[in-house]
Amino acid sequence: MNNIRICLIGAGRAGEVHGDVYKDYIKNSEITAIVDNNIEKAKSLAKKYNLKRSFAFHNLKNAIDNIKFDAVVVTTPTFTHPDYVIEAAKNKIHVFCEKPMATTTRDCDRMIKACSDAGVTLQIGFMRRFDPGFIYAKNLIDKGTIGKPIIIKSLTHGPGLPGNWALDIKNSNGMLAEVNSHDFDTIRWLSGAEYERVYAVAQNFNCAAIAKKFPDFYDTATVSLTLKNGTLGLIDSVCPCFYGYDARAEVVGSQGIMFIGSLQDSTTITCTRENSIVIKQTMSWRKRFHEAYVAEDRHFIECILGSKEPLVSGIDGKKAVEVVIAANDSILKGKPVNIDR
Amino acid sequence: MNNIRICLIGAGRAGEVHGDVYKDYIKNSEITAIVDNNIEKAKSLAKKYNLKRSFAFHNLKNAIDNIKFDAVVVTTPTFTHPDYVIEAAKNKIHVFCEKPMATTTRDCDRMIKACSDAGVTLQIGFMRRFDPGFIYAKNLIDKGTIGKPIIIKSLTHGPGLPGNWALDIKNSNGMLAEVNSHDFDTIRWLSGAEYERVYAVAQNFNCAAIAKKFPDFYDTATVSLTLKNGTLGLIDSVCPCFYGYDARAEVVGSQGIMFIGSLQDSTTITCTRENSIVIKQTMSWRKRFHEAYVAEDRHFIECILGSKEPLVSGIDGKKAVEVVIAANDSILKGKPVNIDR
Amino acid sequence: MNNIRICLIGAGRAGEVHGDVYKDYIKNSEITAIVDNNIEKAKSLAKKYNLKRSFAFHNLKNAIDNIKFDAVVVTTPTFTHPDYVIEAAKNKIHVFCEKPMATTTRDCDRMIKACSDAGVTLQIGFMRRFDPGFIYAKNLIDKGTIGKPIIIKSLTHGPGLPGNWALDIKNSNGMLAEVNSHDFDTIRWLSGAEYERVYAVAQNFNCAAIAKKFPDFYDTATVSLTLKNGTLGLIDSVCPCFYGYDARAEVVGSQGIMFIGSLQDSTTITCTRENSIVIKQTMSWRKRFHEAYVAEDRHFIECILGSKEPLVSGIDGKKAVEVVIAANDSILKGKPVNIDR
Amino acid sequence: MNNIRICLIGAGRAGEVHGDVYKDYIKNSEITAIVDNNIEKAKSLAKKYNLKRSFAFHNLKNAIDNIKFDAVVVTTPTFTHPDYVIEAAKNKIHVFCEKPMATTTRDCDRMIKACSDAGVTLQIGFMRRFDPGFIYAKNLIDKGTIGKPIIIKSLTHGPGLPGNWALDIKNSNGMLAEVNSHDFDTIRWLSGAEYERVYAVAQNFNCAAIAKKFPDFYDTATVSLTLKNGTLGLIDSVCPCFYGYDARAEVVGSQGIMFIGSLQDSTTITCTRENSIVIKQTMSWRKRFHEAYVAEDRHFIECILGSKEPLVSGIDGKKAVEVVIAANDSILKGKPVNIDR
Repeated sequence: MNNIRICLIGAGRAGEVHGDVYKDYIKNSEITAIVDNNIEKAKSLAKKYNLKRSFAFHNLKNAIDNIKFDAVVVTTPTFTHPDYVIEAAKNKIHVFCEKPMATTTRDCDRMIKACSDAGVTLQIGFMRRFDPGFIYAKNLIDKGTIGKPIIIKSLTHGPGLPGNWALDIKNSNGMLAEVNSHDFDTIRWLSGAEYERVYAVAQNFNCAAIAKKFPDFYDTATVSLTLKNGTLGLIDSVCPCFYGYDARAEVVGSQGIMFIGSLQDSTTITCTRENSIVIKQTMSWRKRFHEAYVAEDRHFIECILGSKEPLVSGIDGKKAVEVVIAANDSILKGKPVNIDR
Repeated sequence: MNNIRICLIGAGRAGEVHGDVYKDYIKNSEITAIVDNNIEKAKSLAKKYNLKRSFAFHNLKNAIDNIKFDAVVVTTPTFTHPDYVIEAAKNKIHVFCEKPMATTTRDCDRMIKACSDAGVTLQIGFMRRFDPGFIYAKNLIDKGTIGKPIIIKSLTHGPGLPGNWALDIKNSNGMLAEVNSHDFDTIRWLSGAEYERVYAVAQNFNCAAIAKKFPDFYDTATVSLTLKNGTLGLIDSVCPCFYGYDARAEVVGSQGIMFIGSLQDSTTITCTRENSIVIKQTMSWRKRFHEAYVAEDRHFIECILGSKEPLVSGIDGKKAVEVVIAANDSILKGKPVNIDR
Repeated sequence: MNNIRICLIGAGRAGEVHGDVYKDYIKNSEITAIVDNNIEKAKSLAKKYNLKRSFAFHNLKNAIDNIKFDAVVVTTPTFTHPDYVIEAAKNKIHVFCEKPMATTTRDCDRMIKACSDAGVTLQIGFMRRFDPGFIYAKNLIDKGTIGKPIIIKSLTHGPGLPGNWALDIKNSNGMLAEVNSHDFDTIRWLSGAEYERVYAVAQNFNCAAIAKKFPDFYDTATVSLTLKNGTLGLIDSVCPCFYGYDARAEVVGSQGIMFIGSLQDSTTITCTRENSIVIKQTMSWRKRFHEAYVAEDRHFIECILGSKEPLVSGIDGKKAVEVVIAANDSILKGKPVNIDR
Repeated sequence: MNNIRICLIGAGRAGEVHGDVYKDYIKNSEITAIVDNNIEKAKSLAKKYNLKRSFAFHNLKNAIDNIKFDAVVVTTPTFTHPDYVIEAAKNKIHVFCEKPMATTTRDCDRMIKACSDAGVTLQIGFMRRFDPGFIYAKNLIDKGTIGKPIIIKSLTHGPGLPGNWALDIKNSNGMLAEVNSHDFDTIRWLSGAEYERVYAVAQNFNCAAIAKKFPDFYDTATVSLTLKNGTLGLIDSVCPCFYGYDARAEVVGSQGIMFIGSLQDSTTITCTRENSIVIKQTMSWRKRFHEAYVAEDRHFIECILGSKEPLVSGIDGKKAVEVVIAANDSILKGKPVNIDR
């Protein structure tokens, strides 16, 4: 069995997270190329991964023309996803695309079609679906342990803002897209239902400087959701959040309640007179979801090798984009918005 | 120092909670009369409390005419509060009134004026303000431990429905009033700000039978709130909730996060192969807030003795009524509602 | 029903703990006298309790000669317990005696006999038996939830040293008596068995100054116990302990495990970047066991009024003294010691 | 860089744990041979790992004669460790040896010398030293967060008995060796001191049938330890333990306390009326220490590649053997035993 050869598109933080996983944990894979329009970043990451033939490229076309690989892992800014994904698909290259999938549902449709037409795998990066705690929770819900979900609450508070390109909501769909796509996906996944209606409120508490350039920028938001099966959803969003990286969910069922995730980084607890009982909190999504990233990337390789449909599909990516757009619309209009169809 | 003599108005569950506290824990007080329009319930409770002269009355007027007391504790259905409170005030009797204070803000205003005119104490039963965990949290917030509150989430899931009179929303303002008044008060108290806008969604998952008679009845709701200082609020409500009595809050601040309350009834934990790690949950508000009820009732006596203004005033009661009415309005209209003034 | 009139013997910290409880929480009781050989302390506490006739006495005889009371609460240094208890009993006065009951089992026997002969109540102050968490745990054990107890671990780490009189082990039986009597009682109570054998090791880590005067003084100890039914016990002792007041137990059963108690003072949790997740720890036994003290003192009054045998008897007090003496013997000899009989 | 070729000696549970890790997680390694005196087990595991040339061997000599490899991973019964390790060393093959290292300190010395003479790596399998929670705890201790350790408590309760060969204490040193070697190593590691004295008590509660054949067999034990720097230690041991796999430590320092490890298998929590609050417990050491096994095996490869001394040396292995032997001696003699030297 030959290794699956991977081209990383995007040499930033998220690219490195996946690169490190492929390098250290996924045996039947190898990283063979890095693409980034910042060629220096691409070269730097290539060096870290000891590429046998050091191929760092400025764009995907060059990479395809010069070196063979089986799959791309796309971690560039959201608005660049469609072009990369479609170009890869046309060249019969399998695609792992980070969330948010795109900034419009039309782009999502084009990406899905391109991959489908080419017969290549398309997996979207909702890694929480590979987290042991979330999987265990989903199994318990499906077994009926807490009855039918009636309220699902999910939150992500992220410690650091994404790149400058994301500060303009028109460019990025804002923090609800960049940070809370996961929550929208989690509620949909755990409920097993589609979104019907959304009401969102946003504030900018800590980023007055950004607001000067981008008046619609928000760093704090709450979202109230209704799903087609009647389940209610609540999301709260804070980014930048100063206390750590926080990703949790709480599911109220007709017969019980469930808590998913923890802010604790460690089970080690100390107590001293001065500091009281202290537990280290999670500071980074990279560490919080390390095990999920390994499982997600392993799954991608297994889907390619086994010609299997990924657990997180283009449709899942699109549905999160759709509801995020409606939520931003609600913020701007100050009233609830129905999800189309 | 003579004991403060108390007349319990309402011989139901809430009346007994306060009665038990006065009987067993509040030394400079004594229960001297019970009023309930169900005279048998009044007599039964009178017996339990070994009233020296067994005075159980059908209405407040009879009690006032026949026996002397210094204060009333009103725990009857909400819509009866204004008449009892105003009658007590006119007779220079101090008033402790359970939440919700009334069903309209106009009634609240009348109650406040009556007590003010008579110069008697008026305290409203938001006992969470006397819970050690909530007080400690409020102190930490005020000290700035987590910075300025930016999102405050509060929930109450109650195990059992209130009396039949409460099932008609027109009569009671529904579960948001009966169960979640505490959450509306908590968010206002912790934020130190007034409400500006509310959006609420409700469902009826488990009570189809009630809906036949009262189509507007809901057993599940979510509430999205904006306060005048920008703080955002979220409430979720479930009643009846089958898993226990759940009252918790989570405050996201500009510099940190805070969790208030716990579902745990005990710190005793067991683990067996069959049942895994098990901790007994709280099943009753009486037990969950026992210490708060003692402190609340002790405070009422101290206010009377010291001519002090209670920590929870009629204004606090009215503000909760006001936002609950707006939330119900939002549910019916399907859109956000501004709080007047 | 007349109030039970109480004479506090001992106006120190423990005396004030019981005094405050009787004053504020136990309705059918009143404090009528204070005895302390430091008359100023007695007077000061008498003032705090607004004694109707301000009776503070230098010794018990004077109090008995001058004022009537039904019960004494003995909280003076351990070595003074026998004389006070026996004098009270001879005067037909009921006795609540703090732990440790005495410094020798012979004294315990004399105290038990005096109370028995006089027909008065004798209750020993193992308040953990009145703590809701410990009671709940005991009930679960007796129901067989975790099978038969095979290892019981109990610890007390106390923040502050007792009075100077206690630093001489010959006078006090040391910290195992003053601080860990509770643990010895807890293991015996939870196992339902008597002690057979004990091995103890002690160190002095933080109190070099005390060791100069009292070379046998220890501030840290571990105790290994065998009970007659085969159950094994472990105790660890630290006093002074700088991080708080810590009292917990862990019971391994043949079918499961149980954790009793918590170091947490509050369910309120904060998290900030600088301090991580923080929970306030318990700093004082007075607060940790407040509810237990109320229940313990209420029980004492009920036993007097109902002529009932207290849940914690003189035998319980004696058994703890017996095993503590054996443990100290083991420390000095460096080998295990059998418990007599 | 060529892969490090590994020969697994022992095709049982522990062998498979390491094999799975090498197969799935350690990129610069490959499994090239399996040795087990049960050749069918060796063949079965060889098949699972898709060995390129399917080499399963009955003994190590055959393997060495027929195939090249760089390292062995020894997971066979303890008494077989010395011969395997010494034979590997003589053939210049690196050695990873599971705990307990051997059954006598003389054997440990021979193993250490053989590896030293041959200049090969010798690493002992105390994987807790690679667990993130334990490492974090060790770092905090070394930084002085809780002051100097004064009491260290460590426990292992294992769900299942080891193989029949281990039931005879003379053959295996009993459960203190098989199950609690980790605790002896943990206390020594965290304290940074050597053992001075040990007192142990043991019982057989659940395994009467085994006791018929091996009267010295125990399934429950407590151990009291004194270290040369004065630190006190306590271990409790239960195996078989019916409620799960439990491995935790508690370190009392001169300035604070620290808790290491958790019985929780998941951060997902449910609550229902019938079952109360439920958290899944850890059932297996394989899952509990999965991350530690990956880090441990990665470290072994890095030591070989970098000619580095492993973090867990033969001396560490020997010190645990030495104190376990003294503890068993204490159980049999009923008195404390000094550790030689």
